[in-house]
Amino acid sequence: MALSTMIHTHLPTTLYGGAVNQISAISAHQQVAVDTKLNRGALRLAESLTSLLHLNIEPPSRKNLEYKNLDSFDEEKHNTPTTSPKEMIADKWRHLHGSMDWGSLLDPLPWLRREIVKYGEFAQATYDASDFDSFSEYCGSCMYNRNKLFEKLGLCKNGYKVTKYIHAMSTIDMPLWLERSRLMDTWSKDSNWMGYVAVSDDEETRRIGRRDIVVAWRGTVAPSQWYDDFQRNLEPIGIGDAKVEHGFLSIYTSKNESTRYNKSSASEQVMKLVQFYRGKGEEVSLTITGHSLGGALALLSAYEAAAISLAFQVVVKKDLVPRMPGIVFNENLQRFDDITGTLEWVYTHIGAELRLDVSSSPYLKRAFNPLGFHSLETYLHLVDRFHSAGSAFRSDARRDVTLVNKACDMLVDELRIPQCWYQLAHKGFVCNEHGRWVKPRREPEDIPSPIGDQAREHSLRIQMQENHQMLYASYQT
Amino acid sequence: MALSTMIHTHLPTTLYGGAVNQISAISAHQQVAVDTKLNRGALRLAESLTSLLHLNIEPPSRKNLEYKNLDSFDEEKHNTPTTSPKEMIADKWRHLHGSMDWGSLLDPLPWLRREIVKYGEFAQATYDASDFDSFSEYCGSCMYNRNKLFEKLGLCKNGYKVTKYIHAMSTIDMPLWLERSRLMDTWSKDSNWMGYVAVSDDEETRRIGRRDIVVAWRGTVAPSQWYDDFQRNLEPIGIGDAKVEHGFLSIYTSKNESTRYNKSSASEQVMKLVQFYRGKGEEVSLTITGHSLGGALALLSAYEAAAISLAFQVVVKKDLVPRMPGIVFNENLQRFDDITGTLEWVYTHIGAELRLDVSSSPYLKRAFNPLGFHSLETYLHLVDRFHSAGSAFRSDARRDVTLVNKACDMLVDELRIPQCWYQLAHKGFVCNEHGRWVKPRREPEDIPSPIGDQAREHSLRIQMQENHQMLYASYQT
Repeated sequence: MALSTMIHTHLPTTLYGGAVNQISAISAHQQVAVDTKLNRGALRLAESLTSLLHLNIEPPSRKNLEYKNLDSFDEEKHNTPTTSPKEMIADKWRHLHGSMDWGSLLDPLPWLRREIVKYGEFAQATYDASDFDSFSEYCGSCMYNRNKLFEKLGLCKNGYKVTKYIHAMSTIDMPLWLERSRLMDTWSKDSNWMGYVAVSDDEETRRIGRRDIVVAWRGTVAPSQWYDDFQRNLEPIGIGDAKVEHGFLSIYTSKNESTRYNKSSASEQVMKLVQFYRGKGEEVSLTITGHSLGGALALLSAYEAAAISLAFQVVVKKDLVPRMPGIVFNENLQRFDDITGTLEWVYTHIGAELRLDVSSSPYLKRAFNPLGFHSLETYLHLVDRFHSAGSAFRSDARRDVTLVNKACDMLVDELRIPQCWYQLAHKGFVCNEHGRWVKPRREPEDIPSPIGDQAREHSLRIQMQENHQMLYASYQT
Repeated sequence: MALSTMIHTHLPTTLYGGAVNQISAISAHQQVAVDTKLNRGALRLAESLTSLLHLNIEPPSRKNLEYKNLDSFDEEKHNTPTTSPKEMIADKWRHLHGSMDWGSLLDPLPWLRREIVKYGEFAQATYDASDFDSFSEYCGSCMYNRNKLFEKLGLCKNGYKVTKYIHAMSTIDMPLWLERSRLMDTWSKDSNWMGYVAVSDDEETRRIGRRDIVVAWRGTVAPSQWYDDFQRNLEPIGIGDAKVEHGFLSIYTSKNESTRYNKSSASEQVMKLVQFYRGKGEEVSLTITGHSLGGALALLSAYEAAAISLAFQVVVKKDLVPRMPGIVFNENLQRFDDITGTLEWVYTHIGAELRLDVSSSPYLKRAFNPLGFHSLETYLHLVDRFHSAGSAFRSDARRDVTLVNKACDMLVDELRIPQCWYQLAHKGFVCNEHGRWVKPRREPEDIPSPIGDQAREHSLRIQMQENHQMLYASYQT
């Protein structure tokens, strides 16, 4: 019941854009909760939250808007590109990302819309590429290596390149909600793919007016799994004690020599990237994005980015990195309070708020649907179609409506899109030349912890034999 | 609760091989139920049931067999072909298909095993190729045209060619359990793909000693759907009145000029094939196969095949078509009694019986699992591995164990095969060149009722517009 209550009371998802004084970062929280025991860290963070954008899904209202000129969902529409032409926002980005008051941008929502959708898609990628198969020896990892990620997910259009994968390491006390394989011997039973770092390419950099470094954090679990668990046992996901909090905080800064992608920490790489592009005289921004629990990680990593930049004397001059805009999708989990409470951080409800109404879209079902309302794709749909408060749904929006039902059942039946349609063929099994259905081995570069060495191969084989012996022995006794 | 009770009491699936006096057919029923009002039809069917093979899954026992030399489920095994070399059974087939006592064949099970698996796979194909997507405009049809069916399902190895698709037509009172699209305008809202006719090619004909005509009937629904329905509302599937019975009986003999594949009836084509190959001086057999409710249809069509051959004076000389062996997988649905009771048919529990024990396989979970025990793939696995009663599981069996979990959760976790893994990528949606996810139109030959004409295209477009207008209008009022 705890989770059920949480879903009701914390359903609204917020999206913030904000700026920290030097290494900026963006965080998400909607509650007004000013802790009396302000310490230096709290003050520092408080300073950073002077300009925020909340993006918030509200429960369906009963208000009825007029819908004219709505695109029909037919063959003709299928042949329309999904994205509008890209506008040059080089001279607008500071304004768009919160250096000024958000209010004038939000209603109507002109240039900011595309930016919100872009960062949302970066967060969505962490769901779409995660291996959630508990029978997979790579459970909890990303299905593709970083050079393939955007290509596999159709995100090359955004003009970014993934430079690093972030993993939660064995040295960290892992929260219970992390994905774990049910197998005894896996690629890394105590690691999870937690997100990635990406950098804008030259073309996108010109368009947006600065070199943009993105840190995208993975949400809790695949929405469908989350919902299944919710349906099955109505238990809290299971975070909230001090150890978890400690683990969360260190994910961003942890590193491990024995792994393929975590030889340096995400924090180190971000700093390196900032310095590299700064050295070239470029303007640099840091954007941190995440949905659901990924939003909490985004806030924590933003805090750390700010703290590190001060503590370790990474000098980032104000004129070079004046603003670090960022966007965080967050579910405002109750447990996040537990974590942040310990840190004596300050959350203050400031800035403008963009309220999205599920019932504003004729494509969406209005019935209460915790999974659907929580789904990041639902947010992206509503942002894409938002025109201005009180006015009709934007009829010339182009984002593919089909995406909403990727992992939920939010689209009205008339659209004929099946629920939860985003799935692998045969759950990754393929029929080999002998007619046997097998799960192909991953290419070495898709395995975060190299397991190519003889010793590990041997260990895997022994383990499998033991499994079989145990299995058969159970029939003999 | 009605369905739940049914599942418990009628869980055992039977597989019969038998021969009717002239046009032979095989049926499935395990209950001894001799009706006192015997009519001529009943007597005729009774005569046909002199030799039967029951294949029967029993609830898991607690007996413990020894398992030695069991193949492990590792990489090495993945490289073993799934089928044993084909044996010549030309001089054995009458014996194998029941012209003599089954007893000596069943324990151990030598040549018959491959034959049972072959016909079982023909029945399984009707599940694997059905479009069960209620949002699809082709819901209830076969996803592939008849020329592609075996290729798509990897069944070309069996050496048969599909010659006809069988559809339940609009002139028939359709049972409620048939798949229907939720759309108003579909390929044929009152039709369902019900099975197919296939004929052995020359090579297979030489191997098995006769030209074999197979009629494969589709089961009720996809097992997972059946289970979902069962879980959701515990309601009976909804057949059993006289109209249904009439509809069932006429599926085999119905035809419709306006459709692509039902211009002639299945019955007519079978007779035509029999006459064609008989005209060439070949020995011909008719094999009817089906699982679950498909088993009931197999029995009914077998009865009709026999009746027609007598009533319409299709002369099939005894020396040319002396035996029409067949195999039926049937769940023995309670409702089947309703249908057959009306016909005053006779069922008598005769012939040998092969009892399959779920707990004889170390690969299978033993917990009570109505979906898993009902699954045709579970049967095929147990037949493939069966050696003889009381002896160990056959260690050199080659059929891919992975297949068992296609649409259920019967395999032990140690094998690392996810449940219900047999699924289309993205439920059939593909990303087009504009980045939109769309369901591709079917190739014309994959649409049973041609809809290429302008009138129908126009009608479809009008209908879609009306749907949209209704949808948007609901927001305006």
